[in-house]
Amino acid sequence: MVTYDAAPTALIVHAHPEPHSFSTAQMTAAAQSLGEAGYRVEVLDLYAGGWAPVLAREEFAPVDGLFKPQAEQMRAVKEGTLNAAVKAHLDLLLAADLLVLSFPLWWFSLPAVLKGWVDRVFVMGGVFGGDYGLFRDAALAGKRAMLLFTTGGPSESFQPGGAFGPMDDFLFHIHRGMLEFVGFQVLDPVVTYGPARMTDEERTAALDAVRGSVARIAADFPTTVR
Amino acid sequence: MVTYDAAPTALIVHAHPEPHSFSTAQMTAAAQSLGEAGYRVEVLDLYAGGWAPVLAREEFAPVDGLFKPQAEQMRAVKEGTLNAAVKAHLDLLLAADLLVLSFPLWWFSLPAVLKGWVDRVFVMGGVFGGDYGLFRDAALAGKRAMLLFTTGGPSESFQPGGAFGPMDDFLFHIHRGMLEFVGFQVLDPVVTYGPARMTDEERTAALDAVRGSVARIAADFPTTVR
Repeated sequence: MVTYDAAPTALIVHAHPEPHSFSTAQMTAAAQSLGEAGYRVEVLDLYAGGWAPVLAREEFAPVDGLFKPQAEQMRAVKEGTLNAAVKAHLDLLLAADLLVLSFPLWWFSLPAVLKGWVDRVFVMGGVFGGDYGLFRDAALAGKRAMLLFTTGGPSESFQPGGAFGPMDDFLFHIHRGMLEFVGFQVLDPVVTYGPARMTDEERTAALDAVRGSVARIAADFPTTVR
Repeated sequence: MVTYDAAPTALIVHAHPEPHSFSTAQMTAAAQSLGEAGYRVEVLDLYAGGWAPVLAREEFAPVDGLFKPQAEQMRAVKEGTLNAAVKAHLDLLLAADLLVLSFPLWWFSLPAVLKGWVDRVFVMGGVFGGDYGLFRDAALAGKRAMLLFTTGGPSESFQPGGAFGPMDDFLFHIHRGMLEFVGFQVLDPVVTYGPARMTDEERTAALDAVRGSVARIAADFPTTVR
């Protein structure tokens, strides 16, 4: 049981280009479940918001010599000159008790717009490095994160010995390299396999399953407000 | 020994925001080695070229209903309506005997601009699916690919039991999920660990090591022109 001064916050960062996709419906279902479990839910819809994913020199104060991205992130944190959009998302990230990355699995990883959210918002000096360390000494230590995604292929293809390879092995770079690296405890992912080949009835059942999974996850970490 | 009607082609897709970075120097060194080994070398510099990495509805012919990215890629291949920039890069990809992805390892994966090159250029129907299958039945079967990258952390951190985790495990999503998926035989990566902490002399030696590694790789696959 964790006690909060206010309702705990879930930050959902969503990346699908189609507002009426199954992926977007899945995100909405998860948001509803979290809301019913007592979370205050914030959604960043990266496609709808036109997020620019390319980490580049132009977002920083002018650089005299070589542009070294992480050095510039450290400097911007220290001097308070972070790009306004990055700062706003970083503040949401730091305030969240639960981070949910919601996306279709593209090339066994994050869509570029979401990878570029990590590239730009997980700033050195702001979430790791500088006054922070890595992993358990990073800024998000004590917080939780989970992936919520869809696949093109069926679940059998992601079993050990399956046509693609083990899902855990594909997710390692995100779970270990992105989420644990900045301190998060990583929860089991919530996955819908192959919604494109489902009937309407199967999709409805799949969304119900997502609601159930998210509700169980929330119940595993009961929260009370002080 | 492989025989070509013309010199074999290496396509280097490079993603670093700083033209004077070590990463860019490493790419140039590799290009030189490949040239000396008899390859015709094409370089796509994604930052310099302003590559737009976000796969979106706008790059396709107008869609009546839901925007389904892979279905639209299939349709665009069939109807000859692929976005011009995507088509140009796809043609280079299909013509290449060796693909080299050159980048700094950001969050244990590709920088967003390079992930978005894969998202947009590895089109369904053009490199897999449609008339092609997956893996050995995909369009790039018989071709080779390799990663050429730099890290922030030292090599010890990427050993089994190291602070981060095994490098092979981090690279699995790229090697298996992107390169093998479209048919490539994946060569060992060429990596420079932690160039940011090197002296000028150490960097010079590291670039020499890259030239040597790339030359050995080229020698492992000798080519002759018919």
